[in-house]
Amino acid sequence: MKKIITISREFGSGGRTIGQKVAEALGYKFYDKEIIDMSAKDSGLSPDFIAKTEQSISSSWLYSLLLGSSYIGGGNSNIPAGTQNPILPLADQVFNAQRRAIIQLAQKEPCVIVGRCADYILKHCEEINANDVLNIFIYAPIEDKVKRSIELKKIETTDAKKEILQIDKRRSNHYNTFTESTWGDRKNYDLLINSSLLGVDETSVMLSEIIKHTK
Amino acid sequence: MKKIITISREFGSGGRTIGQKVAEALGYKFYDKEIIDMSAKDSGLSPDFIAKTEQSISSSWLYSLLLGSSYIGGGNSNIPAGTQNPILPLADQVFNAQRRAIIQLAQKEPCVIVGRCADYILKHCEEINANDVLNIFIYAPIEDKVKRSIELKKIETTDAKKEILQIDKRRSNHYNTFTESTWGDRKNYDLLINSSLLGVDETSVMLSEIIKHTK
Repeated sequence: MKKIITISREFGSGGRTIGQKVAEALGYKFYDKEIIDMSAKDSGLSPDFIAKTEQSISSSWLYSLLLGSSYIGGGNSNIPAGTQNPILPLADQVFNAQRRAIIQLAQKEPCVIVGRCADYILKHCEEINANDVLNIFIYAPIEDKVKRSIELKKIETTDAKKEILQIDKRRSNHYNTFTESTWGDRKNYDLLINSSLLGVDETSVMLSEIIKHTK
Repeated sequence: MKKIITISREFGSGGRTIGQKVAEALGYKFYDKEIIDMSAKDSGLSPDFIAKTEQSISSSWLYSLLLGSSYIGGGNSNIPAGTQNPILPLADQVFNAQRRAIIQLAQKEPCVIVGRCADYILKHCEEINANDVLNIFIYAPIEDKVKRSIELKKIETTDAKKEILQIDKRRSNHYNTFTESTWGDRKNYDLLINSSLLGVDETSVMLSEIIKHTK
């Protein structure tokens, strides 16, 4: 049975809740914001700063890109834990701190990790056996994501659709930049499911069953 | 419970077998080559010719593309059933004949239809309620597809990988041309699954269970 489940998700698809329910059903740990806190301790960056930087490409990052900096592709660079590195763009420092945190958590005990390129990180690190990792992507039609986001008061009703698309665009940019792969492309996941097909609760039950049947 | 299941699949992923097993488990009809025969009768084209044309873009098709023919986008044109139409490229005639056959079959009784852009056709036709349709995509890592294809003697061992990639490239080209969408893109499906995760038999069982839980 797979020990490390990563869940990537479109905003408003219910992917985070599904991750929580799957973790509960399997008796696995659930990680999301916790990673930010761990990363913060490790890097010396504040949790607030990390939260703001992680889903957007910072201007320093873009600047390094324009200059053709050799630090592009944070997923492959492996800077030892410590305080801020003055020559490494902040976006890279945040990514590296999160990368270390994700690997540490995944090594410790069975878990579900939401977002933060965990699928890519854990499939491409020496510390983890790739066979232990199962990668899931949760999505939904835009009209259902709008409805859900408004119901849960995650978003203002004005321009909800535009806002949701922008959030997903940022998630996609972040993933594509750090992994050199494509967010939501089936090749990166073992299973992709439209959460509207069965709803959040039933999807969680089905995913838990599928995970229980894995080797 | 969804009445019309479409299965799109990468070559060697076991998608066709999964479709058969799902149909058996649900007591649904299963359609694959049968569609070719029906299409043939309808269009006056021979089954052999259809089998050869359906997965490749014919030279007449490419010729019409170069000339900017108004017949591009067979999925949207709706030529009445009958004998060959001299001004419509043959690839379009085959697509239209298959389209009509797929719609007729889906109207008749609950079924599983493999390949042939059925997902797109049934989601975009007036005759079928889109809520009755569930679209699944089956894929697998290339090494597993090579192994499976060789085991089932579907392919020669020399250059098996290259051949499989070419077949999928043709499937992709065919889909992308006729649907103006992207083959294997999650937006076109409700569920995409790597058949190597659980294997063909377990995947079939899980998919049948999921379908039983749909509204």
